Amino acid sequence: MRKDLGRRAAAVIGLAAGLSLAAAVPGCRVRNPYHEIARRLLERGLADRGAFSILQKILAVGPRLTGSPQAEAAVAASFQLLKDMGFDNVHLEPVEVVRWIRGPKEEARLLSGAGRTIALDVCALGGSVGTPAAGLKARVLEVRSFEELGRAGDRARGRIIFFNRSWDHSLQETFAAYGPMAQQRSRGAVEAARAGGVAALVRSASTSEDDFPHTGLMNYENGTPAVPAAALSPKSADRLSVALKLDPDALFELVQGSRTEGTVLSSNVVADITGTEKPEEVILLGGHLDSWDLGTGAHDDGAGCSQAVEALRLIRSLSLKPRRTVRAVLFMDEEFGGTGGRAYARSERRASERHLAAVESDRGGFFPLGIGLGDSRTFPGLAKWEPVLRSAGLGWLRAGGGGVDIGPLAESGTVLGGLVPDSQRYFDVHHGALDVIGAVNARELELGAVALAALAYVLAQEGI
Amino acid sequence: MRKDLGRRAAAVIGLAAGLSLAAAVPGCRVRNPYHEIARRLLERGLADRGAFSILQKILAVGPRLTGSPQAEAAVAASFQLLKDMGFDNVHLEPVEVVRWIRGPKEEARLLSGAGRTIALDVCALGGSVGTPAAGLKARVLEVRSFEELGRAGDRARGRIIFFNRSWDHSLQETFAAYGPMAQQRSRGAVEAARAGGVAALVRSASTSEDDFPHTGLMNYENGTPAVPAAALSPKSADRLSVALKLDPDALFELVQGSRTEGTVLSSNVVADITGTEKPEEVILLGGHLDSWDLGTGAHDDGAGCSQAVEALRLIRSLSLKPRRTVRAVLFMDEEFGGTGGRAYARSERRASERHLAAVESDRGGFFPLGIGLGDSRTFPGLAKWEPVLRSAGLGWLRAGGGGVDIGPLAESGTVLGGLVPDSQRYFDVHHGALDVIGAVNARELELGAVALAALAYVLAQEGI
Repeated sequence: MRKDLGRRAAAVIGLAAGLSLAAAVPGCRVRNPYHEIARRLLERGLADRGAFSILQKILAVGPRLTGSPQAEAAVAASFQLLKDMGFDNVHLEPVEVVRWIRGPKEEARLLSGAGRTIALDVCALGGSVGTPAAGLKARVLEVRSFEELGRAGDRARGRIIFFNRSWDHSLQETFAAYGPMAQQRSRGAVEAARAGGVAALVRSASTSEDDFPHTGLMNYENGTPAVPAAALSPKSADRLSVALKLDPDALFELVQGSRTEGTVLSSNVVADITGTEKPEEVILLGGHLDSWDLGTGAHDDGAGCSQAVEALRLIRSLSLKPRRTVRAVLFMDEEFGGTGGRAYARSERRASERHLAAVESDRGGFFPLGIGLGDSRTFPGLAKWEPVLRSAGLGWLRAGGGGVDIGPLAESGTVLGGLVPDSQRYFDVHHGALDVIGAVNARELELGAVALAALAYVLAQEGI
Repeated sequence: MRKDLGRRAAAVIGLAAGLSLAAAVPGCRVRNPYHEIARRLLERGLADRGAFSILQKILAVGPRLTGSPQAEAAVAASFQLLKDMGFDNVHLEPVEVVRWIRGPKEEARLLSGAGRTIALDVCALGGSVGTPAAGLKARVLEVRSFEELGRAGDRARGRIIFFNRSWDHSLQETFAAYGPMAQQRSRGAVEAARAGGVAALVRSASTSEDDFPHTGLMNYENGTPAVPAAALSPKSADRLSVALKLDPDALFELVQGSRTEGTVLSSNVVADITGTEKPEEVILLGGHLDSWDLGTGAHDDGAGCSQAVEALRLIRSLSLKPRRTVRAVLFMDEEFGGTGGRAYARSERRASERHLAAVESDRGGFFPLGIGLGDSRTFPGLAKWEPVLRSAGLGWLRAGGGGVDIGPLAESGTVLGGLVPDSQRYFDVHHGALDVIGAVNARELELGAVALAALAYVLAQEGI
């Protein structure tokens, strides 16, 4: 696009400014002071791009795998950051978490009868047991579904079961396509073991056909042998599939040293802007501080943490004094079981508080499209705030939303919500080595923080 | 985001699928066959991601600077691609363009009195004259605006004028912030020369504070000396500004070998799906084939070209037979004067055709938010197609839109439109070395092609 000065520029810019213009409908501005505040939050946020600076600080400790020393370093660094930023009531709340350790060595290769060795890109899935130190060697059975495995009968016995269901790109909503991929990952080891298999290999849940394996949680069940489970990069999965067609009896060798070391004590990190009139009523903004360990969890969910903190900073930077408490919570252990969210909801500290709303950002720091909030019962009373969010640069407010960390608050009647960004790029990086700060755009990240700040402020003033 | 199987997955996916669900309102599906077609275009597009393959082919020749041998190679490759894809009426239309050549050497350094030399990242602006072969050496006057330069009076004489207006990040719409930055670039040399300056240096129009200079067109005017004009990377501009505060008399040395070599003949590339009932009535989809030369013009505007071609491919892949002609035009020379768009509108071939609508994609291949179409007079009759575009995955259809290439068609009453993607990342790469295919996401690019296909088809069937 060339800038054709003075000719069509005005029309083009007017079009691009559509979202902002829509909010400037005559009347709204006069009747509703929140529009002006939302606009100021937007300007200030984009000018400062504070969420990106906060994200850099959170990511400075590296990957933050639940139970790891780095996760504890992130707790300490976040606590100090929130203290330094001068928020109220900055404190830690205890969470007991599992400590799983990825082994130093993760290798996979296919040994073809023709004397050919094909090295494959692999990573252990979270929670998986390791192989014997010398590795595990077996023939491979490739399937696309649990049903296909069921039909294989005795052919699965003694084999490494290779679950090679691939991403359904025809679905626009990547979270919808992620569902079956995550099930293959999560239940693969159990289904493999039930069928007599000795390990589970799964194709990574990735939208990018590259060489990066993506990890994620897997589960065992009582009474079924715990077999090792690993993810192959999409390209390695393709390579393996082709090689097996040429030599179905080729031996697959897997070496991984992962193990679980019991539980350790970790923390949720909490900071407030205390409400001036009803401090016991809380509007919560949250993300999760733990991450997977192949990248640094920049989008998942350093982004959500940085946005929650930045939203508080933005509210304060305009010298706003919310009537109710606006709180940022950086939850521990979303990835390994959601213990942080449950511990938060059950904490005795909650006895003297009432959480009106909890809004989570855990879909990456991409361009925010909208916010889902409440359900069919509560949303009709909240829909009126959509124009304010439009003034803050957001497209829409709709019913729906929630998340793993804030879910347990639903029992006490809290209205749940979630930020919904463009999801097209999320699963390129999610749970993989590419989820690093270079994949985050400072302006897109900030727009999410601005929307959360505007929503939190209006709810803190007006209640629900 | 962890996949919490079976617990909150349904709610989360339901929320994410909001756009698609909105289109499935009971009644619409029965009454309007275009919803089903739009959904099929969306599924097919995302499954194939054909726009990305087309983009790879267009970019294979490298940068496509107007008038360069590579631009001609791109014309030939695109012509062959469209032939191979089996479209109708594939042909070239002549365009006379300027040939500007970037010199082999572009260097800038500040020579401080303290014997220190600071190397700076620089590139010639498009259309600029070169310096003498040995370079140009002068003191620098830094200003933030033309007004500030005006007030400098004699202090500008014999100086290199350094226009250091920086990007206004507080504006959400990056195209609005681009306007003044582009003006600094476009008019800098004229303003510098009028003030008695010997060259113009401009801070790059970039949203990213990095080491990459961004080029773009600049202009001279009759009667004012043509002085060299170059862009500094944002970081080099900052570095220069700081260095000048320490040593205002430091000498700046600029070497650039750019020159203009008159005009050459080039081409627009055209392909049709000929209408079955009114072949002379045309719905045009367009992008521009030329690019700047520092990157490979992946977003600007390889993306738009690939989307126009992919839209035709998608329509044909569903065996749809549009009543009116749907046309893809890859315009030459958007960046260096828009001669391609004017030549197309004025071609004698247009005498037997009537262009009902022309829709351009020239804002990058990012996640598409909406389409701007028509004006206050024509839009009311077109607004009814918004639900169809929602079925194709798009957020909205609004009045507004157009572009440099299709603008000249307005005279003959053509309704103009433009695809509006998320603009937050565009000016990180625009006109710079980072505008390469690695910056393009195949799914986001495809969603733009799908929206264009759905709009073109419905207009080809229903007219305007």
